[in-house]
Amino acid sequence: MTKAPQGSAAPQQTAQRTVRPAVSTAVESAMRRALALAAQGPPHGPNPRVGCVLLDPDGRPVAEGFHRGAGTPHAEAAALAAARSRGVDPRGTTAVVTLEPCAHHGRTGPCADALVDAGVAAVHLAVSDPNPVAAGGAATLRAAGIEVTTGTLADEGEELLRHWLHAVRTGRPYVTLKLATSLDGRVAAADGTSRWITGPQARAHAHTVRAQVDAIAVGSGTALTDDPSLTARTIDGGLFEHQPLRVVLGRSAVPGDARLRGPGGPLLHLPEHDLAVVLGLLAEREVRHLLVEGGPTLATALLAADVVDELHAYVAPVLLGAGPTGVGDLGVTTIGAAARFTTHDVTRLGDDVLMVARRTQPVTNPQPAHARQNGRPSRPTKEEI
Amino acid sequence: MTKAPQGSAAPQQTAQRTVRPAVSTAVESAMRRALALAAQGPPHGPNPRVGCVLLDPDGRPVAEGFHRGAGTPHAEAAALAAARSRGVDPRGTTAVVTLEPCAHHGRTGPCADALVDAGVAAVHLAVSDPNPVAAGGAATLRAAGIEVTTGTLADEGEELLRHWLHAVRTGRPYVTLKLATSLDGRVAAADGTSRWITGPQARAHAHTVRAQVDAIAVGSGTALTDDPSLTARTIDGGLFEHQPLRVVLGRSAVPGDARLRGPGGPLLHLPEHDLAVVLGLLAEREVRHLLVEGGPTLATALLAADVVDELHAYVAPVLLGAGPTGVGDLGVTTIGAAARFTTHDVTRLGDDVLMVARRTQPVTNPQPAHARQNGRPSRPTKEEI
Ligand SMILES: NC(=O)c1ccc[n+]([C@@H]2O[C@H](COP(=O)([O-])OP(=O)(O)OC[C@H]3O[C@@H](n4cnc5c(N)ncnc54)[C@H](OP(=O)(O)O)[C@@H]3O)[C@@H](O)[C@H]2O)c1
Ligand SMILES: NC(=O)c1ccc[n+]([C@@H]2O[C@H](COP(=O)([O-])OP(=O)(O)OC[C@H]3O[C@@H](n4cnc5c(N)ncnc54)[C@H](OP(=O)(O)O)[C@@H]3O)[C@@H](O)[C@H]2O)c1
Repeated sequence: MTKAPQGSAAPQQTAQRTVRPAVSTAVESAMRRALALAAQGPPHGPNPRVGCVLLDPDGRPVAEGFHRGAGTPHAEAAALAAARSRGVDPRGTTAVVTLEPCAHHGRTGPCADALVDAGVAAVHLAVSDPNPVAAGGAATLRAAGIEVTTGTLADEGEELLRHWLHAVRTGRPYVTLKLATSLDGRVAAADGTSRWITGPQARAHAHTVRAQVDAIAVGSGTALTDDPSLTARTIDGGLFEHQPLRVVLGRSAVPGDARLRGPGGPLLHLPEHDLAVVLGLLAEREVRHLLVEGGPTLATALLAADVVDELHAYVAPVLLGAGPTGVGDLGVTTIGAAARFTTHDVTRLGDDVLMVARRTQPVTNPQPAHARQNGRPSRPTKEEI
Repeated sequence: MTKAPQGSAAPQQTAQRTVRPAVSTAVESAMRRALALAAQGPPHGPNPRVGCVLLDPDGRPVAEGFHRGAGTPHAEAAALAAARSRGVDPRGTTAVVTLEPCAHHGRTGPCADALVDAGVAAVHLAVSDPNPVAAGGAATLRAAGIEVTTGTLADEGEELLRHWLHAVRTGRPYVTLKLATSLDGRVAAADGTSRWITGPQARAHAHTVRAQVDAIAVGSGTALTDDPSLTARTIDGGLFEHQPLRVVLGRSAVPGDARLRGPGGPLLHLPEHDLAVVLGLLAEREVRHLLVEGGPTLATALLAADVVDELHAYVAPVLLGAGPTGVGDLGVTTIGAAARFTTHDVTRLGDDVLMVARRTQPVTNPQPAHARQNGRPSRPTKEEI
C-alpha cells in the first residue's frame, strides 16, 4: 500500500455533505467493519490499531483500509488509496474511522489533512485521540467544513484500543499480570517446582498472549529459579514472528548462560525496584502493553502499587496444600478491603480455566489496591450463610 | 400415580419379541427420553432416579414413567400404569429403562416381576444395578424369556446416577467439597471474615446445590466462627422444599442458640474425627451425596484421606494476599505429586467462576491424595518456559 495522492478538492457545501437518515444505520455497520479491520493490525507496537471505511452518499462502502503497523500508511490514507486504485473518487464520501484522525506530522502526513484534501463530506469516529501530540484532527476537519460525528460504537473502540489508550492517558504501559495457580492459589509446590501446574492448552494460550504484547517482565527470582526463555512460541515450539522485549526486574545479575540471552526479543535488565521508574522507562521505550509473568514478589509489589490493569489467572484443578501463593501481603486484613477486579472473560482451556479480570475503577490517581476500597464498608458479619 | 395392576400374561415367543433393526435407533431416543424423565425425580434421597419408556413393536413410545422418590412407584411400574390408564396393553412392548429393574421386595414389589407379568417382550438398560440387594433383575427377566440388552447410553446413565452408584459401590457417600476462594486461594481474610468472597450469583448457585444433596457438613470451626444456618434457600431468602441433613463434625459443642438449630434440615452433631467412621455413619443414614462446606481443617482432612469425589470451586476475581488458604498441608512437596482432579464443567456466575472437577481415578482402594500420584515422575525441571 502506498501513500495516497493528495487530492486538491476542497470540501463543498452540497447535499452530499451529510449522510441521509436512511444511511445512518449504514454508518454503524461500517464502523463495525472498521473495527474488524483495525483488529487485523498488530496488537503490539507503538501505534494504535485503526480501521477506516469510506461510504458513498447512499451509505454503500466503496473502500476500506487499516493500519498495518509503524512505518506503514495510516488507515485513512490506506482507505483513500484503495478508493483511488479502484477508480473511485473519495470526494463526497463519508469516512468511518475507529480513532480520531491524527493532526500531526509523524512518519506519515496528518490524516486529517489527507481527508480534507480528498474532499470527504463527513467523518464518523469511535474514539477521540487523547494523545496531545496527535489530537486536533476533528478540529482540523471541522475547520475545513467537514461534519464530524464522534462516539459511534465508542465502547467497542475503547475496548480495541484499551492498551494504547491507557498508555497515552497515563504515561505508563497497560500492565497485565499473569498468574498460573492451583485451586488453592499456589504458584509453585513446596520445593519450588512449578512446571507444570497448568496444562498444554493453557500454556499455548499464554504464548499467544506473549505474541501480542510489547514486553514481558519477570523478577530476578523467577529469572534465576526457572531460567525462562520468555519467548512467544507456537505449539510446535517455533518462534512467533513478533517477539516481545524481555525485561528482568531486580538487582541480581542475569547469568551469562541464561535462556533469556538466547533467541527471542531483546533483553532489558532493570536493576530497579521503584515501579514508577520501571514503568516510566518502559513507556519511554514505547511499551504500551506489559505482561508480567511473576513471581509472587514482583506480583505483590505491582498490586500493592495498584498498577495492575488486568489479571490473567490460569487456574488448574489441582490442590497443593503448600508452596508459595501467587500474591503476598497486600495489607488487606478484612474481606471488605480485598483487591477486587471485574471479570471480563472466562475461558476453559483443557482442564484449566482462564479468568481475565480487569481493574474495577479506571486509573486516575494510583494508590495501593487495599486503600482503593477502604471507604467501602464491609458486609455485616452477622449475615446468614 | 397408583401401583400398576399385575397382568397375568406370560411372555410369548413371537416376532414381536425382538426390536426390529429399523426400530433400534428408536431405542436410543427412548433411552434419552427415559434419562430426561429420570432427571425429573429428586436428586436427593436414598433411591436412584430412574426413568422408563415403553415402545410398541414399531418403536413408537406408548407410555412413560419415572420414580418420584421414596415411597412412590418405581419407574417401570409408573410406565406400566400409564400405559394401562391409556388403554394400552403393555404386552409385547419394549421397556427402555435407565437402571436395571430391581429384583427385591422393597416398599414396592420387584419391578422385574412387574415387567414379566406385564408381558413385555424386551428390555433395554443403561446401567446395571450394583446394589447386591436389588440386583438380579436382568436375570429374572432373562429367566422369563425376555431379551435383555444392557449398556444403552451407559455413560449418560452413569452420569445421572453417579452419587447413588458411588454410594452403593463404595458404601460411603459421594463427597462434594465446596470451596469459595479468592484468586490467590484464600477462603477468608486475615481477620477471619469470609462474607462475601463470592458474589450473589455464586451464592445462589451454592444454595441450589444444597437443595440437591442429602447432607451438608462443616467442621466445628466453621460452625462456631460463622454461625451458618446451612439451609437451602431461594434467592428471596425462603427455604427450598428439600432441606438437607445438617452435620457438624468435631468435638466442640454446637451452641444452644446456633442458627444450625433453627429452621432447616435436622441437625446431626458427630463428635468424631475419624472420617471413615463419619462417612460410614452417614451412609447408614442413607446419605448418598454429602456436600462439605469447609473450613480448611476439615477440607484438608478429607483430601488427605482421599475421600473427595468432586470439587466445587467458586473462584472470585479478588486478591487477599493474606488469610487462610482453602487447603492446608497434604504432604505434597513437589508439583508432580499434586492432587489433580479432572475438570468436568466451568461456569461463569456473575463475576465469579465455578469450576467443577472430579476425582481423576475411580475410587478403588482409598489412600491419601498425595500418595495416589507418587508413582508418576515429575516433569523434567529443565523444560523451557
Ligand atoms: N505459577 C506462576 O505463575 C509463576 C510465575 C513466575 C514464577 N513462579 C515461581 O515463583 C518463584 C520465584 O518467586 P520470586 O517471588 O522470588 O520471584 P520474582 O518476583 O520473579 O522475583 C523477585 C525478585 O524481583 C526483584 N524485584 C524487582 N522489582 C521488585 C520490587 N518492586 N519489589 C521487590 N522485588 C523486586 C527482586 O530481586 P533483586 O533482589 O535481584 O533485586 C526480588 O527478589 C519460583 O518458584 C517460580 O517458579 C510461578
Ligand atoms: N470460603 C469458604 O469456602 C469457607 C468455607 C467454610 C469456612 N470458611 C472459613 O474457615 C474458617 C474456619 O476454619 P477451620 O479450619 O477452623 O474450620 P473447620 O474445618 O470447619 O473446623 C475445624 C474443626 O473441625 C473439627 N474436625 C472434624 N473432623 C476433623 C478432622 N477429621 N480433622 C480435624 N478436625 C476435624 C475440629 O473441631 P474439634 O476440635 O471441635 O473436634 C476442627 O477444629 C472461618 O474463618 C470460616 O469463615 C471459609
